[in-house]
Amino acid sequence: MNIKSIEWRNGAIKIIDQTKLPGVFGYIDIKDLKTLCKAIKELKVRGAPALGAAAGLGVYLGIKDSTAKDFSVFKKELNKVISYIGSSRPTAKNLFYGLERMRKAAESNKEKPVSLVKKILLSEAREIIEEDRASCRRIGSYGQKFIHSGDTILTICNAGILATVDYGTALGVLYSACEKGKKIKVYSCETRPLLQGARLTCWELNRKGIDVTLICDNMAATLMRQGKIDKVIAGADRIAANGDTANKIGTYNLAVLARFHKIPFYIAAPASTFDLRIHSGKEIPIEERKKEESTELFFAKPIAPKGVKVFSPAFDVTPDNLISAIITDKGVIRPPYIKNIRKILER
Amino acid sequence: MNIKSIEWRNGAIKIIDQTKLPGVFGYIDIKDLKTLCKAIKELKVRGAPALGAAAGLGVYLGIKDSTAKDFSVFKKELNKVISYIGSSRPTAKNLFYGLERMRKAAESNKEKPVSLVKKILLSEAREIIEEDRASCRRIGSYGQKFIHSGDTILTICNAGILATVDYGTALGVLYSACEKGKKIKVYSCETRPLLQGARLTCWELNRKGIDVTLICDNMAATLMRQGKIDKVIAGADRIAANGDTANKIGTYNLAVLARFHKIPFYIAAPASTFDLRIHSGKEIPIEERKKEESTELFFAKPIAPKGVKVFSPAFDVTPDNLISAIITDKGVIRPPYIKNIRKILER
Repeated sequence: MNIKSIEWRNGAIKIIDQTKLPGVFGYIDIKDLKTLCKAIKELKVRGAPALGAAAGLGVYLGIKDSTAKDFSVFKKELNKVISYIGSSRPTAKNLFYGLERMRKAAESNKEKPVSLVKKILLSEAREIIEEDRASCRRIGSYGQKFIHSGDTILTICNAGILATVDYGTALGVLYSACEKGKKIKVYSCETRPLLQGARLTCWELNRKGIDVTLICDNMAATLMRQGKIDKVIAGADRIAANGDTANKIGTYNLAVLARFHKIPFYIAAPASTFDLRIHSGKEIPIEERKKEESTELFFAKPIAPKGVKVFSPAFDVTPDNLISAIITDKGVIRPPYIKNIRKILER
Repeated sequence: MNIKSIEWRNGAIKIIDQTKLPGVFGYIDIKDLKTLCKAIKELKVRGAPALGAAAGLGVYLGIKDSTAKDFSVFKKELNKVISYIGSSRPTAKNLFYGLERMRKAAESNKEKPVSLVKKILLSEAREIIEEDRASCRRIGSYGQKFIHSGDTILTICNAGILATVDYGTALGVLYSACEKGKKIKVYSCETRPLLQGARLTCWELNRKGIDVTLICDNMAATLMRQGKIDKVIAGADRIAANGDTANKIGTYNLAVLARFHKIPFYIAAPASTFDLRIHSGKEIPIEERKKEESTELFFAKPIAPKGVKVFSPAFDVTPDNLISAIITDKGVIRPPYIKNIRKILER
């Protein structure tokens, strides 16, 4: 299989509608900004690196029909598009990284005619995509060294093909290990409330022919206690300068359990996920999702009494001291993170 | 409100059909053994103490129409009924406790006419029920001392009115605290796969007017890290002689998290939950539930690819060293459990 989760095709952003998986595997064309932001909010396209790509293409989608003649007018339109996309989801750094890349690409070409700037912006968005393709493979290559033949690996949410352009971060590490001929088994946490682990990771690993077993999130501790898990690996939505890592809610849970059971816990993410302007995870904005995601089973059937209060953060923060190593496209970062993150990212 | 989860009424076992909650609150009458065992397997009636009551009434239901004239024939029928009920679910000790009580009541009256033995068995079943009512209130009374006004308590599954005859074990402790005028807040883990926390505990606490907030199971760690949880309390399905406690899958997860965050973790259960013939949790049989409970959202909609492998234990075992105290109807048991369980239960 050769799936691309997101690309620019025939004047539209072409994405897999991930809310339809695993039942239906199909693409949709997104032709306007409002539809894109709705698709991001509703998680039709999701995963931090994929959101970086969506941000890049989204900016181009938003300004490609601009009738602005000079850059100052164009820039106002551009800024509006950027802040509109930026308001879709708050946590993943890659979204803002993509937007910032597009802003800078426009700025550094502001002397050129607007029509040319537009073309440059499409190139820039495509470059973000190509960089993701390459960086995921580098993450895989660095990360597969941690995986041994015979290992059983636990993962959460979906940090695979569907979360990136076409390879994955945490799952990319596993794909890379398999490409090296290593035999592995995977347990996938279903990842409530929106079940990205059950719906997406199981689907993706099944297609790749990798041995995967689904568990409910609350079963991970039992597997670890039974000695069935050799490693835990997860993706990331934002990593602070000290290594604190925001990722799908439940990741911190696994990190604590891994520490208790003395199991290595790895984060895999590209450089674009790091936010070096913030010192620790406390500064990472955590999205709170609407309560119906918890009270109605995948928007189907009520499973809690009407009016019940709900706490539903979309992400949690895993403190740096619970992370064995952060696998990036620039190399593997080990503690002390406060020093080594800058050292590796800036080299 | 004055709900009874299970009682003998008009020649039938009257239970709340818990699979219909929170949408529909209604009773069903169970008039034959096959229907009872199906109801137990499908969790229409569930909760370790309620299963003890169901076992007692079930034995009577199974033999009340016996035409046996002498005890030896009657005993064969009785044993068949007992082993049939015993095959419904393997983990909760109370089920077997109830069956054993009924067997002994018959045995010790074997000189009496069969018709009288039957009446004695109905009395015995009703006594199991009355004992549960009383013992839950004693658990509440002992346990409420651990709860302070202003506390926020995390619980899992449903160890309340619906899991017992009419008061609850873990939730009974909270009800008792409220009756003493203490103000508390509760977080309820939804408890995948069958969502007893979302469906039953939220419903029950809402009706009782207790402030409850629903979380997905993987959010508990975040709440603890934010300092929002003062205590964790759970029920139990079987407790070994050393204090190892089998309870709903996810309980061990919470116990590890509580230890990591230095939060007290309590188990509340009646004496009938203890199984002193087994030395540790390793000997507790853990029921594996069918995979559709994980792959189809409450039997409604597929959420994982067809044919995916599933690991789905219904229970886990929390080792004694993670339990701050076990609150029973005979008093509070503290470590070292191996000594103190016998001391308190046998007094």
